Amino acid sequence: MDLKGFLTEYVSHRSVSSDGALESGMAGARGHLMAFFKELSIDAKEIKIGKHAVIFAKTEQVAGRPTILVYGHYDVQPADDVDLWDSAPFVLTERNGRLYGRGVSDNKGCHASILAAVHGMVTAGKKLPVNLKFVLEGEEEIGSCSMPQFLIQMKDELAADFALVADTWSLDESNIVITTALRGIVGCEVELTGQSRDLHSAYGGCILNPIQALVDMCSALHAEDGFVNIPGFYDGVTCPSDWEREQVRRLPMDDGKMRELLGVKWFKLPDARFSAAETMRFLPTLEFNGIEGGFQGEGIKTIIPRCASAKITCRLVPDQSAEKIQRLLSETLEKLCPKEMSLFMKFEQAVNPYFFDVANCASETLRHAMGIVNGAVRDVFGATPLYLREGGSIGLVTELKEILGIDSLLIGLSTAQDNIHAPNESIAISMLEKGRKFFELFFSRL
Amino acid sequence: MDLKGFLTEYVSHRSVSSDGALESGMAGARGHLMAFFKELSIDAKEIKIGKHAVIFAKTEQVAGRPTILVYGHYDVQPADDVDLWDSAPFVLTERNGRLYGRGVSDNKGCHASILAAVHGMVTAGKKLPVNLKFVLEGEEEIGSCSMPQFLIQMKDELAADFALVADTWSLDESNIVITTALRGIVGCEVELTGQSRDLHSAYGGCILNPIQALVDMCSALHAEDGFVNIPGFYDGVTCPSDWEREQVRRLPMDDGKMRELLGVKWFKLPDARFSAAETMRFLPTLEFNGIEGGFQGEGIKTIIPRCASAKITCRLVPDQSAEKIQRLLSETLEKLCPKEMSLFMKFEQAVNPYFFDVANCASETLRHAMGIVNGAVRDVFGATPLYLREGGSIGLVTELKEILGIDSLLIGLSTAQDNIHAPNESIAISMLEKGRKFFELFFSRL
Repeated sequence: MDLKGFLTEYVSHRSVSSDGALESGMAGARGHLMAFFKELSIDAKEIKIGKHAVIFAKTEQVAGRPTILVYGHYDVQPADDVDLWDSAPFVLTERNGRLYGRGVSDNKGCHASILAAVHGMVTAGKKLPVNLKFVLEGEEEIGSCSMPQFLIQMKDELAADFALVADTWSLDESNIVITTALRGIVGCEVELTGQSRDLHSAYGGCILNPIQALVDMCSALHAEDGFVNIPGFYDGVTCPSDWEREQVRRLPMDDGKMRELLGVKWFKLPDARFSAAETMRFLPTLEFNGIEGGFQGEGIKTIIPRCASAKITCRLVPDQSAEKIQRLLSETLEKLCPKEMSLFMKFEQAVNPYFFDVANCASETLRHAMGIVNGAVRDVFGATPLYLREGGSIGLVTELKEILGIDSLLIGLSTAQDNIHAPNESIAISMLEKGRKFFELFFSRL
Repeated sequence: MDLKGFLTEYVSHRSVSSDGALESGMAGARGHLMAFFKELSIDAKEIKIGKHAVIFAKTEQVAGRPTILVYGHYDVQPADDVDLWDSAPFVLTERNGRLYGRGVSDNKGCHASILAAVHGMVTAGKKLPVNLKFVLEGEEEIGSCSMPQFLIQMKDELAADFALVADTWSLDESNIVITTALRGIVGCEVELTGQSRDLHSAYGGCILNPIQALVDMCSALHAEDGFVNIPGFYDGVTCPSDWEREQVRRLPMDDGKMRELLGVKWFKLPDARFSAAETMRFLPTLEFNGIEGGFQGEGIKTIIPRCASAKITCRLVPDQSAEKIQRLLSETLEKLCPKEMSLFMKFEQAVNPYFFDVANCASETLRHAMGIVNGAVRDVFGATPLYLREGGSIGLVTELKEILGIDSLLIGLSTAQDNIHAPNESIAISMLEKGRKFFELFFSRL
């Protein structure tokens, strides 16, 4: 299969899930996938639960062979600001060994590598050595809100030994990363209301300003050393094993390089035992994503605002529980809120952390597969992969574990160079081709 | 002079100084004033320094008579949201003994009462017993930015024994307030920048979030008891005299009524010696007028924002110095700013507090005038006035003192019922008529 040809059409379908005006782009991307499966005589159907249908396909399922659930998403981020792109975002363009276009890395190109591997094996007349099931969703970029219901509804059909997901990050082609853990997340919006309306600050001095109450509350959520100051917050946080810390040290990225990457002058590390690269992987956080109150225009407007609000998310690590952290955060905010203020809280997200215990996972097939991955990555990319926890969250991976009871093999083909979610998204052709080779090798060796 | 007739045309001129599209309304209002002075053969001219000209007029100046500088402003606040008005904002409308229209209380109606008194005396053929100078500006609602330069440039022409300003507040027609002090003000915008761009919160934990740094800094600016936590902030704050506290107690407004007026459930008073009405008059403040950072839209966006900012104003009381407070605030913010953040500060306003020592003021003419005011208010409004400090700031009054060396007699004709700066601004016809009578009596008794 001509991967570039496949992606030229795939990228041309403007499958921006957040844009109601681009429904035809979504349908076009689905049509392209359906045609792919039809060509290979693989059963496929569109299953619509939320806004955009999921493509579910499966090869012939033969008893006794490993069953793998391949996950990907055909929806992409919006392409604005289009002026910042060097070539049209929905016209696949090759420059210096890279393919440019919205979604070419996140996630069309990455799952296309898997599809190309399957295509190669089927059209060469080789019998597929594994049972494959494909779940290609269209709502990842808008929160995968329908996926829990999809997984529950399709539970029996989706049964598999493990999931295979190429939607994470690697450092480069010589440093392929297998992601072994994802942080969980709890989101909360907090609003404080003081009086019934904005007041002229001539009245200032005798009433509590809602911004003042909010900054006091928010400030109290961290101790001076940078640790989160919520009683019980760190209960259940497990210490990473020496093996995991060793993997982080193998990452060719010291603190100086990482500061450059993030654009910061100084790190602020609460726990002196951990480097920055470890801190973002091994410790939970409480982060302010937004704060708002009073006058936002130019200059000064002398008001005491009626209300003020903040958006907070906590990233959680194994074995914290999203439900418990939600409760602790809620209790702490209530306790900190002064009697002069009305407190309104809205909890938005609650995803448990995910941890894949490479050496001790429950599935014998997956334990076997992990050995094959190690060798196949070395054979194709030239070095064994790094096994790293990541700082981000993928709700779906947690749900696959909690609803279907299966772990995910998370292999990253995207790199920081790819500019995902940004203008001039791209991916190296060599990464795509190595990806295809890796998946062929992986499937055939299983 | 028909006050309602005069205001009908005056209000019809849409003199919104902040709206460049309403230049003709500004010119119309000036034309209306120029015609008034011309009718009475009073010398008047338009003096343009900033955006909108000041009307400067003066009666015949006779040696040996008291000279009074009458100040008012012909510009008004915008009238939006027009839908919230019960009658068109620029069409003077009478309902239940009140006149409705934008600017009818702030400040067109109030200075029109003075003009009407002058008109009455001149047209009755009476010789004016005082020398009057009029300064009617068109930039009060946009900060009176040109006034300092105007006062400096016109210093000799503006020489007077005292200024007369009807642009403050009274409780009602039976409780006329003479404002004896105004708080000063220092404004500052603070911006903290952490890293070069918004980051995905997957990196959270190893870098200091600018919102977190900002809430820590802002929170540290008050002690737990509510006092401002800046070393030296309260130096120079004078204790109000027993006489001044007695005047506040005469105000028929207990804390319960005041809570209702402000729409708050609880007062927060740092100094147990002072009631709420005293606190807003006698103590300085540090207020947050706005705060902003990160994601403001619906839901959650998992970013660590690049920067966060706050708008702060301090209200100052005698004998604090605006310059010193600016310096202390700047030093404190610099000291509180963590090394991980770049701090940007912009100081916006710096007005010293104003204090008019009724019994001991320097001008003999004004001391004499104060005795007359007391009797004339009693004769017209039925009770002697209250002498109160106010919580707000009028930069111009401070500048009249600092540049021209004159105190201001601040008599309030506006009440809280007038909805100034809000939809359905109005003023009671009886207040306007009593105002006219008072000014006639006051001028003739001088």
